[in-house]
Amino acid sequence: MKTRLYNARILTMADDAEPFRGELWTDGGRIIFAGTDQEAAEKRRLPGDLSFDEEIDCSGNLLMPGFKNAHTHSAMTLLRSRADDLPLDKWLNEQIFPVEAKMTEDDIYHLTKLAFLEYLSGGITACFDMYLTPRSIARAAKDAGFRMVQVGAVNNFSQSPELVEEMYRELNGKDPFNSYIIGFHAEYTCSRDLLEKIAALAEKYKAPVYTHISETAFEVAGCRERYGMSPVAFLDSLGMFRYGGGGYHLVHVDDDDIEILKERGMYAVTNPGSNTKLASGIAPISRYLTAGVPVAIGTDGPASNNALDMFREMFLVTGLAKLKDNDASSVDAAEVLKMATVNGAHAMGLDDCDTLEVGKRADLIMIDLMQPNMQPVNNIRKNLVYSGSKSNVKLVMIEGDIRYRDGEFFIGESPSDIYAQAEEIKARIDREMKEQKA
Amino acid sequence: MKTRLYNARILTMADDAEPFRGELWTDGGRIIFAGTDQEAAEKRRLPGDLSFDEEIDCSGNLLMPGFKNAHTHSAMTLLRSRADDLPLDKWLNEQIFPVEAKMTEDDIYHLTKLAFLEYLSGGITACFDMYLTPRSIARAAKDAGFRMVQVGAVNNFSQSPELVEEMYRELNGKDPFNSYIIGFHAEYTCSRDLLEKIAALAEKYKAPVYTHISETAFEVAGCRERYGMSPVAFLDSLGMFRYGGGGYHLVHVDDDDIEILKERGMYAVTNPGSNTKLASGIAPISRYLTAGVPVAIGTDGPASNNALDMFREMFLVTGLAKLKDNDASSVDAAEVLKMATVNGAHAMGLDDCDTLEVGKRADLIMIDLMQPNMQPVNNIRKNLVYSGSKSNVKLVMIEGDIRYRDGEFFIGESPSDIYAQAEEIKARIDREMKEQKA
Repeated sequence: MKTRLYNARILTMADDAEPFRGELWTDGGRIIFAGTDQEAAEKRRLPGDLSFDEEIDCSGNLLMPGFKNAHTHSAMTLLRSRADDLPLDKWLNEQIFPVEAKMTEDDIYHLTKLAFLEYLSGGITACFDMYLTPRSIARAAKDAGFRMVQVGAVNNFSQSPELVEEMYRELNGKDPFNSYIIGFHAEYTCSRDLLEKIAALAEKYKAPVYTHISETAFEVAGCRERYGMSPVAFLDSLGMFRYGGGGYHLVHVDDDDIEILKERGMYAVTNPGSNTKLASGIAPISRYLTAGVPVAIGTDGPASNNALDMFREMFLVTGLAKLKDNDASSVDAAEVLKMATVNGAHAMGLDDCDTLEVGKRADLIMIDLMQPNMQPVNNIRKNLVYSGSKSNVKLVMIEGDIRYRDGEFFIGESPSDIYAQAEEIKARIDREMKEQKA
Repeated sequence: MKTRLYNARILTMADDAEPFRGELWTDGGRIIFAGTDQEAAEKRRLPGDLSFDEEIDCSGNLLMPGFKNAHTHSAMTLLRSRADDLPLDKWLNEQIFPVEAKMTEDDIYHLTKLAFLEYLSGGITACFDMYLTPRSIARAAKDAGFRMVQVGAVNNFSQSPELVEEMYRELNGKDPFNSYIIGFHAEYTCSRDLLEKIAALAEKYKAPVYTHISETAFEVAGCRERYGMSPVAFLDSLGMFRYGGGGYHLVHVDDDDIEILKERGMYAVTNPGSNTKLASGIAPISRYLTAGVPVAIGTDGPASNNALDMFREMFLVTGLAKLKDNDASSVDAAEVLKMATVNGAHAMGLDDCDTLEVGKRADLIMIDLMQPNMQPVNNIRKNLVYSGSKSNVKLVMIEGDIRYRDGEFFIGESPSDIYAQAEEIKARIDREMKEQKA
């Protein structure tokens, strides 16, 4: 499939390049040209086959890299709006865990696809997913053509270091849509023995490790009690991050923690929607930036957030930083846009999905600038971060194929079938829970 | 115009009624029926003319009252993304004021219409607008068929108590789209003499008064220095709120302030997007609720926010309250939805635009539930507040007429013409500012 996208504004996100008027061409899963109108005209004058399967007039709208959702639990779509406005312990123990215990591999396949629809409708082209059944999740990604990076979810109750190693070997390099990174759920849900085994895996494969770290003050206090160290310091002391990696949330950290993150080349993956809704706190984004710790952005799962919407997250990243720092100039729009695209890609090991440059994978979105929230066009980056909305997403391409366009989805299954599956799963699990109680 | 909306879920927002399956009929600007399918069938069996000009199959989607944007400066669309990521004083003095000084009545007409487009695209059916040229703003509302409540914007540099009185008499009761409420910009921009004249107007018309109050800690400290009282207490001491009214922002208040708000029957109009982006602080929403002070929600203007999006504001109202209170159960979704609809209407004096009941004005929206962020439908109110998005808005009706449907606007002028006007105004003002500097 060769596609020509012309009459576009292009924000490559390479270096700090300004948006320019031009064209972008794809061949198979890759970008083969991205340049100005003049450069495109010159290129077309050269000999060689420049026929395209599809030519798309972008009508002056913006092409940019797709958003990278750097932390989520996709299949928790089932739990959306089921357990809100509750304190964290009730939320987990009375609502989340009992339902999750009833979810099958097949349920997770369908519920993950429901999340893909939401990602696509908001311009997200890849997600960094931690959940229960890696094989059925990988199947969903391959069937839908959605770029999926999974991370190990080991804790004392589910998965194992052996499974993580198996998945690491099985899911990497198999198809263009799937990859897998070593990880575990969190310090507070894993025994020391388990953590040491994960650290040994990291050493064996010289690979980065990702996990939830320092999401709540309670978690940090618990770790200090157990090990006399903060979660970052304790995990690092096991050699966990010798080859880098990162932490999801990282809300409650001290200067020593930040120093460790910096030294190990780790990513801070921030989840402001979830941290807000669950009252966990505000992550110190400005301090990460000052220290040179790269920040990426994740929605977290739909039970905690509950939207899978990078526009909302981007506004929250900068807005909450401004509130926390008491400074309206904190964490500017260009910085946030980089977190949501380039940094996310790098955190997820997707080094060739970060920018719109020749040779990179064709994971891109078209943003409709002819909507009132994008007018007038004083500054495109600021428009995207401060007034942008998922309703501005006109087209989403992954690996060179269009997966979403003007409200229609192209993932091999209709949205109404996916919604019906989710409602069926919900009804079945509700029935099972009722029977259990009776 | 008689319209029948059938095959709908209806959330009337009257009392705490749950959504039900049914129909809603309008005649002229009013709702003439809202009931279950069975009630509708019975009604249709009675004798009498039940022909409709239009019958709309809602396909199971949700009808609910339109959102009420209870504080904004619509025409500041021009300034969107022009002055972000700056400290407040630089923002105002170097970017906002010099541009505003060059805006004409006619500019404001067009720029207000640009805001209407954004309101409609996000399900907002009415706004409470404070800006410079009331007559051209009223003309924009009438021409577009958008419900506009203006409030006086007097300060030491523009407008006057005489103009406020003139507009109060001229704009109320003239056409169904316009009304006007007594008000002034803020304590810190008005002399005591000016404030006393406004208070006298309130007394003369036994009318409520609205103004910006206690937005920043700096403002409150200044007022204490000038008058030895908080802004709420000082303004109240002038008799300003004898007939009620309300304050925009109300971020920095003490218990005595809240007591005054309660006693005077005042509304706290919260603006979390703006307060976040300008680092003003988090309003004490839970304390207002506990004290029985009704809360409404506004976007503030597009230079401060920069989106005019009630979905973003709703998430921020509850999210920031949860953070501030360190409690994930603070300010639940049903409460927030009431603020964004019923309370907003009441704060703006639109007592017949608050709910979907017979006799009320037909200001309503249809929410597309068949989008991934609304699935599965565990709880409609929570879906709206926690995962809803302006992309879910399928149809907007004001005064019985459809003004927005499936991405198309019906306000008597095309969006592209309005965008072109805004770009032209921007270019002209930029040119004038350049010439001034040279």
